[in-house]
Amino acid sequence: MKNYLFLLMMQFTLVLSAQENLDFSGKKAITSPEINTDNSVTFRLLAPEAKKVSIQGDFISSGFAPGTADLKKDSAGVWTITTEKLPSELYSYSFVVDGLKVQDPNNVYLIRDVASVVNVFLVGNGQADLYKVSDVSHGTVSKRWYESPGLKMTRRLTVYTPPGYEQSKESYPVLYLLHGVGGDEEAWMQLGRASQILDNLIAQKKAKPMIVVMTNGHTSNTAAPGESSKGFYKPIMMTPDVFTGDMETNFSDVIQFTESNYRAKKDKANRAIAGLSMGGFHSLWISANNPDTFDYVGLFSPAVLPPNNATAAIYQNLDEKLKKQAAAKYKLYWIATGSTDFLYKNVTEYREKLDGLKFKYQYTESKGGHTWANWRVYLTEFTPLLFK
Amino acid sequence: MKNYLFLLMMQFTLVLSAQENLDFSGKKAITSPEINTDNSVTFRLLAPEAKKVSIQGDFISSGFAPGTADLKKDSAGVWTITTEKLPSELYSYSFVVDGLKVQDPNNVYLIRDVASVVNVFLVGNGQADLYKVSDVSHGTVSKRWYESPGLKMTRRLTVYTPPGYEQSKESYPVLYLLHGVGGDEEAWMQLGRASQILDNLIAQKKAKPMIVVMTNGHTSNTAAPGESSKGFYKPIMMTPDVFTGDMETNFSDVIQFTESNYRAKKDKANRAIAGLSMGGFHSLWISANNPDTFDYVGLFSPAVLPPNNATAAIYQNLDEKLKKQAAAKYKLYWIATGSTDFLYKNVTEYREKLDGLKFKYQYTESKGGHTWANWRVYLTEFTPLLFK
Repeated sequence: MKNYLFLLMMQFTLVLSAQENLDFSGKKAITSPEINTDNSVTFRLLAPEAKKVSIQGDFISSGFAPGTADLKKDSAGVWTITTEKLPSELYSYSFVVDGLKVQDPNNVYLIRDVASVVNVFLVGNGQADLYKVSDVSHGTVSKRWYESPGLKMTRRLTVYTPPGYEQSKESYPVLYLLHGVGGDEEAWMQLGRASQILDNLIAQKKAKPMIVVMTNGHTSNTAAPGESSKGFYKPIMMTPDVFTGDMETNFSDVIQFTESNYRAKKDKANRAIAGLSMGGFHSLWISANNPDTFDYVGLFSPAVLPPNNATAAIYQNLDEKLKKQAAAKYKLYWIATGSTDFLYKNVTEYREKLDGLKFKYQYTESKGGHTWANWRVYLTEFTPLLFK
Repeated sequence: MKNYLFLLMMQFTLVLSAQENLDFSGKKAITSPEINTDNSVTFRLLAPEAKKVSIQGDFISSGFAPGTADLKKDSAGVWTITTEKLPSELYSYSFVVDGLKVQDPNNVYLIRDVASVVNVFLVGNGQADLYKVSDVSHGTVSKRWYESPGLKMTRRLTVYTPPGYEQSKESYPVLYLLHGVGGDEEAWMQLGRASQILDNLIAQKKAKPMIVVMTNGHTSNTAAPGESSKGFYKPIMMTPDVFTGDMETNFSDVIQFTESNYRAKKDKANRAIAGLSMGGFHSLWISANNPDTFDYVGLFSPAVLPPNNATAAIYQNLDEKLKKQAAAKYKLYWIATGSTDFLYKNVTEYREKLDGLKFKYQYTESKGGHTWANWRVYLTEFTPLLFK
């Protein structure tokens, strides 16, 4: 019995290949992407029947959109391209095969960004080392559901608790970290690499151990696509809940949940709120309407003003609210944007408004535009400034 | 300022499309897959330049492997196929375009299974309703790291705590739920739909509220591919840690972690262990070597015996160990397998051994083979029998 069983076990690969979607079909093993020692990257795709294969990626310079470059076919039908040396970063890409955008079949690492899925890879030895899982103590990442009496919904959020939280009896400060219009409660953990960034910065003693609460900023949803009772629907970019004020007005439910479910320090000095794009918009308005709640505010490539038809009370009288926020004092009001961000002018005008009100803030300007590359960097710059 | 800003916000879609991988390129909107009202399913792919498009899926009958069927092209370049009415199930598929296996660009729901990624969809109104996120109370799913002194590693695991756990002061029974040779600590949550199954069965009062701990059964890894300091490597099927005995020998570290970090009931009557395939193998040997630990054992399509060259002490003297396990008493020893499973003969011989030893067990035989479809069903059948 033992002998034939060993043979059977060895057949696992083949059998599961047949039954459970595995691809061990004996095709020539291909590695793609391959990060070369000089930080150039080689991509390969076996597609003997294809007439044209190109790659679309955010590492190919094109001025604005992800650039495109063509691969070349060898006699075995393997299409190949090698990039220049790339700066350390988390990159994304897709192949385009005879006009059809496809994922790299040799790269199982994929991240959804609204209605698209892209492959990702990481070039280390630099900034992106903060985005890696390192051999350091790791925090816990939990997907939880909380009651929002204001929205009359049970909603999902993601909570990062720092290494040692469970063994400790201490209380911790809290960063509320908000996503953009295309995101959800998964966004900062996926493209944002928030748990890796926090683990690494805490291990390096550059950031204080903190709880990070990542909500879903679309109040018409209870959870990310596929994670609610709406099922596996096709995600869309804009939802009608933007600018209703519902997110900002009911954010107190999130704070209430956090402070009654976690060992959170419950004072202004130990609360921070930050967000990217729409999340920056949310952070601006939530903090302006609650001047006694947050000592730290981070606006990453923020949208600033709602449209004229946004009538929620929360959006009225910004100047007065900012004056009250200044009078109530805060420790850090941090704004960052990319020099080619399409919201650059918007942010500049908001800074002029703040200057006119003598409202103190720190401003950081990076290269590039409205990208996750920038938002990850902003998180690595903002979190070390918190809770000092 | 407000007016141009509103226009800017409206441009979010287009701009992010360019910068952040979104595909709103104005192509005709396509829905795929579309679950029709009669539970047939229509797939669509826009690929005007393709010569041949087929679909490979576990819902296409072919006797053994996932079957294949060809799509037909219309004048707009959209390839289409509609299936027969499908039984309620979570299905997976890929397209094959001119010989290249690709994902459906209109379906963002993907699950990795070892080295492949497949699209998934769900047909409801039956068994698969247990796999849906329903409007019921939800448990919490956490990714945590635990110390294994035995393995001298810090390792990642997934913990499901039932709805109400955080508000309650009660202690809960624990199910340790183990994956197969191709899996990791994510497997039962991904293809296994364990949190949905538990949420739904607990809401229906068919299963008792319980903690479910899902480990990584490959002791040469600390975590799932991409989640450890090994980075984004290409996953492989068989690893050299299978049959070393390391997983079984050091499982006490998992129990120790669970019982000191969660409000877990700490007696035999409140511990269950179950697993699929290699995880069934682990459950068999862990329970046989620790006859006083588990009152409930579940072997789902289990592998049974190690190869002759597996010399770990834990694999010796099975008959004696089973006799001790029987003498120590247990409440349920549950075995399930599919009638066409490649391990069927193996399981039959093991049952004959148990019969010979007068070792009591319950046996369930389903249709089909060594598949996640069966393992999900087994989980829905096994958990209602626990902790009664």
